[in-house]
Amino acid sequence: MSAIPEDFVATTARLSDEVTRPFPASAKRYATGSRPDIRVPMREIAQTPTPKGSVTAATDTTGAEQNPPIWVYDTSGPYTDPDVTIDLLRGLPDVRSGWIVERGDTEPLAGPTSEFGRRRQQDPQLAHLRFEHLRSPRRAKPGRNVTQMHYARRGEITPEMEYVAIRENMRLDELKRDPRYEKLLRQQRGHAFGAALPDSITPAFVRDEVARGRAIIPANINHPELEPMIIGRNFRVKINTNIGNSATTSSIEEEVEKMVWSARWGGDTLMDLSTGKNIHETREWILRNAPMPIGTVPIYQALEKVDGKAEELTWEMFRDTLVEQAEQGVDYFTIHAGVMLRYIPLTADRVTGIVSRGGSIMAKWCLAHHRENFLYTHFGEICEIMAAYDVAFSLGDGLRPGSIADANDRAQFAELETLGELTKLAWEHDVQVMIEGPGHVPLQMIEENVTKELKDCFEAPFYTLGPLITDIAPAYDHITSGIGAANIGWYGTAMLCYVTPKEHLGLPNKQDVRDGIVTYKIAAHGADLAKGLPGAQVRDNALSKARFEFRWEDQFNLSLDPDRAREFHDQTLPHDSHKVAHFCSMCGPHFCSMKITQDVRDYAEAHKLDDAEQAIAVGMHEKAEEFVREGGRIYREV
Amino acid sequence: MSAIPEDFVATTARLSDEVTRPFPASAKRYATGSRPDIRVPMREIAQTPTPKGSVTAATDTTGAEQNPPIWVYDTSGPYTDPDVTIDLLRGLPDVRSGWIVERGDTEPLAGPTSEFGRRRQQDPQLAHLRFEHLRSPRRAKPGRNVTQMHYARRGEITPEMEYVAIRENMRLDELKRDPRYEKLLRQQRGHAFGAALPDSITPAFVRDEVARGRAIIPANINHPELEPMIIGRNFRVKINTNIGNSATTSSIEEEVEKMVWSARWGGDTLMDLSTGKNIHETREWILRNAPMPIGTVPIYQALEKVDGKAEELTWEMFRDTLVEQAEQGVDYFTIHAGVMLRYIPLTADRVTGIVSRGGSIMAKWCLAHHRENFLYTHFGEICEIMAAYDVAFSLGDGLRPGSIADANDRAQFAELETLGELTKLAWEHDVQVMIEGPGHVPLQMIEENVTKELKDCFEAPFYTLGPLITDIAPAYDHITSGIGAANIGWYGTAMLCYVTPKEHLGLPNKQDVRDGIVTYKIAAHGADLAKGLPGAQVRDNALSKARFEFRWEDQFNLSLDPDRAREFHDQTLPHDSHKVAHFCSMCGPHFCSMKITQDVRDYAEAHKLDDAEQAIAVGMHEKAEEFVREGGRIYREV
Repeated sequence: MSAIPEDFVATTARLSDEVTRPFPASAKRYATGSRPDIRVPMREIAQTPTPKGSVTAATDTTGAEQNPPIWVYDTSGPYTDPDVTIDLLRGLPDVRSGWIVERGDTEPLAGPTSEFGRRRQQDPQLAHLRFEHLRSPRRAKPGRNVTQMHYARRGEITPEMEYVAIRENMRLDELKRDPRYEKLLRQQRGHAFGAALPDSITPAFVRDEVARGRAIIPANINHPELEPMIIGRNFRVKINTNIGNSATTSSIEEEVEKMVWSARWGGDTLMDLSTGKNIHETREWILRNAPMPIGTVPIYQALEKVDGKAEELTWEMFRDTLVEQAEQGVDYFTIHAGVMLRYIPLTADRVTGIVSRGGSIMAKWCLAHHRENFLYTHFGEICEIMAAYDVAFSLGDGLRPGSIADANDRAQFAELETLGELTKLAWEHDVQVMIEGPGHVPLQMIEENVTKELKDCFEAPFYTLGPLITDIAPAYDHITSGIGAANIGWYGTAMLCYVTPKEHLGLPNKQDVRDGIVTYKIAAHGADLAKGLPGAQVRDNALSKARFEFRWEDQFNLSLDPDRAREFHDQTLPHDSHKVAHFCSMCGPHFCSMKITQDVRDYAEAHKLDDAEQAIAVGMHEKAEEFVREGGRIYREV
Repeated sequence: MSAIPEDFVATTARLSDEVTRPFPASAKRYATGSRPDIRVPMREIAQTPTPKGSVTAATDTTGAEQNPPIWVYDTSGPYTDPDVTIDLLRGLPDVRSGWIVERGDTEPLAGPTSEFGRRRQQDPQLAHLRFEHLRSPRRAKPGRNVTQMHYARRGEITPEMEYVAIRENMRLDELKRDPRYEKLLRQQRGHAFGAALPDSITPAFVRDEVARGRAIIPANINHPELEPMIIGRNFRVKINTNIGNSATTSSIEEEVEKMVWSARWGGDTLMDLSTGKNIHETREWILRNAPMPIGTVPIYQALEKVDGKAEELTWEMFRDTLVEQAEQGVDYFTIHAGVMLRYIPLTADRVTGIVSRGGSIMAKWCLAHHRENFLYTHFGEICEIMAAYDVAFSLGDGLRPGSIADANDRAQFAELETLGELTKLAWEHDVQVMIEGPGHVPLQMIEENVTKELKDCFEAPFYTLGPLITDIAPAYDHITSGIGAANIGWYGTAMLCYVTPKEHLGLPNKQDVRDGIVTYKIAAHGADLAKGLPGAQVRDNALSKARFEFRWEDQFNLSLDPDRAREFHDQTLPHDSHKVAHFCSMCGPHFCSMKITQDVRDYAEAHKLDDAEQAIAVGMHEKAEEFVREGGRIYREV
């Protein structure tokens, strides 16, 4: 009696191949916490030994050097675990319900309490679209506050906090005790712009960062499938991806598939920006199958409910939308409460006016009514809803610049100052907050955004879109913005919202999503390295060592996109024998710098130049004396 | 009696389509200098008017706003000029011979003076590969120095200097007097790290920068087809591309086609890194058809001549190679003269040893002979050859880091200090110099490279490969390095050597070359914006204005890659009607922030809020008084 249309089942059945296939040479591992139900996923990448005879090998008894497995942060969820049976019709296994229930501060509801949620649940015409195994939503008991910030401020370490501590720490303490990792743990000194990265992430550290608002753990009590993660500048830089059907294209099936695809390539959070029909049902499908926090912009759906007429929006129907989505399990809401009536005219002389959808909706409403933004005037009530489900704020930058010309202008910064004021209000409710940022900003003006955000918003995590450092490269805006993202992440942004090559042009397909994510993983990891995040360089070191030793397979397997690395290699040198060959296609078999360097080391060894530096220093000393004896001419005939 | 193989002619005939087709809405224009034979190419991109009724339009009498044409720097050479007949068999039109001959300080030679050049010219077996219309090479008359630096230091402004001044200035002085450009000339303030960008580039400024070694104009007297360009940090940041057949793949035809392709997408210079057979003949074909400076690494060819046995290299045959290539017209040579014997052991403990091909060749030679690098000991003689043809040095970084772990280490910086010493020597010969830089460097360590280079090498232009900010993304290294490139360009690097997605994996095809170039154009332009190069923002402003006004065609045409922008747009919205529609596929027809912003402006206008800021400020003042009267409650019911 499945209510799912046949073609949907067919589509989701296909997930098993392209999307759930584990990465090559990779195994899903779980690190268990202080209780058996804290099981933190990680990916272990196996390496091959360095071949016998390679001069870089620290040989074992067989003559080969064993290279240890490399552990990497894993966002892919149960989809890449061959031991988990995926059934999109039932949703993912429940990770958090036990933790939520045992806290005793929430209660199950009979059903949705929002008017819209009830209407959708009861509409027989939607039966074929509806997720089948709906759970009853939970809500805080009257007078209770169920946010992670609230617990942290009471001094409690929740299982969610312990989970993210283990996840961030990525076995670093153990690796430090394992001699096989000694060389791989070498790391350049970072420059962290005042961030305070600890040597080791403890649950207590996580709690303290959440308590002081410097980090958030988006974790709605109605999203128990979630694998908790943390957003804050003293942790790994995270990336957000977006999906969303629009009125012109896309369907539920495509969106669910894109969510799984996003998890696979490294998306830490995901925003569902759908604006078409069946937003409610699409969101349910996504949430029930999403291992990552899900964010939305509730004003988009509210606008759908009034047929796109911004002036007809009301607080009451917006409030109903918040409750509807909170009870589905959305983990963070973008709320454009900083778009103040008095700031709107500041955009009149811009090259690109207001480009944020949410910002322009609220601007239109404000002008139509000549009243202050109702998200601002009702901010306290919004906080109460957020606290009852633990939805985090993502305070929207409705006046962000849409072009280089408009960067860092008064409209943008005035709104940012208001977001700081709202942050304080939210914190009075113990509601978690992050702050959205631009947009389009040239390189030299990026740092000011971070400095100002940290100051005006009291170090609440910054969450930025790009920024794009130039406007002239549509079709390459994953790159124009990836450059800005690496920099802003380095300066202290906690999460980077990805941009795909289709930005400004069209809706991204799966390959665009992959390009966007990998670009942003590069930016985020580049920022981690730059800040000096402990252990961040292990994967770089391992991959470079593999490259230098011509372990082609390991080089592919350790890379952010093993499939494409292999594919590109094979376009030039398709034969398997080439993957163990001591040369690469750039130079051909007889002329390769890496090979020559090995020869150099061989030579040094053969000539008993084991301590080559010293030996040559001695040699040079003799040469230098000879040089002086001969009159010190710089150029002499060889 | 053509000596060209049939299939080669066929291939080159195809250039006319994909490669020579002018960019959409673009026309080739020439700005003429003080003499009629100084004709500097630029690309003019036409724009459509802003439609009548758009609130952003400053309307003319017809109700529409005319948008002026945008001028952009044009590297594509005569290939995109429909008035020029391209014949690869004859080579490009001669731009500079008149200037060179009238200086009276050079003389034509009877033929190649290098032994190898003579041998290749006389070998009947090579007839089918040989370029047909060979010119006699020229050389400085005995005792004369023919470098642009030499002329500059004598106070002369050569036609080459005037040419690059016009080219850099890009009609900016004229645009400043044209009211249509007033808004488009708006620009954010730059931060130039001590670079001294003038408001307007004059020939005298070019001369002064070349005289003091802070910029170079690579322009071999045997490359008269060249359209001169300048490399220095007070000018536009440039990008270099690489081509090169290898022993395993590629042919002459492909390399010539890639050179034209590189010019089309924006390559400012090009290095021919061929290592296979027929290097000499390939280079001739490239030079005779190249509008941009061509660089080589002569040691690669020298190594070919000794069958890949580095230890058999000799100064004599290397010298012969320099003369051979200088007489063909190579504009700059990478010379790894800073790889000192005593520095080699400093690489022994690296993760990736020596990764530069040139560096490892010289290291092997040094160790094999236990003697100092012959490029160092013969540096003065090399300078004499460079001065006789005006070949510029690109002093190679043979010990550059090949991984994040090896960045900024003693080996790298020791070599850089030696390059500074060599710069001074070259300048004593009035030979132009640029300095090569890394490589793999994490974000936080990039600036030190520039600071140290400027200090140790006396501000000689820095020319860097990337740097890659992480090692973990093979197949995306155009991006890992594009991030580093934008930053290092901002800090003061004069030219960025591009990296393609195939770096570390295989040989780039045409699409990889395009991806690499566009990525590096983004990086270079981002650096220009960040430094505050006058006029740099015009194209951004024009494109953003077009985007905001839904002038889709103009948005495509103004972009770095109009073809891909259009293609991406059409994947979602293929119909022509959508290219004039006031919406885009991200939001659909009824929900678009840009449309809403226009509505906001319409509303403001309709309600006589012409000076909206003031009107609303007044309104807010009234509201504020009301707010205070009502007791100052922040939240009141709407």
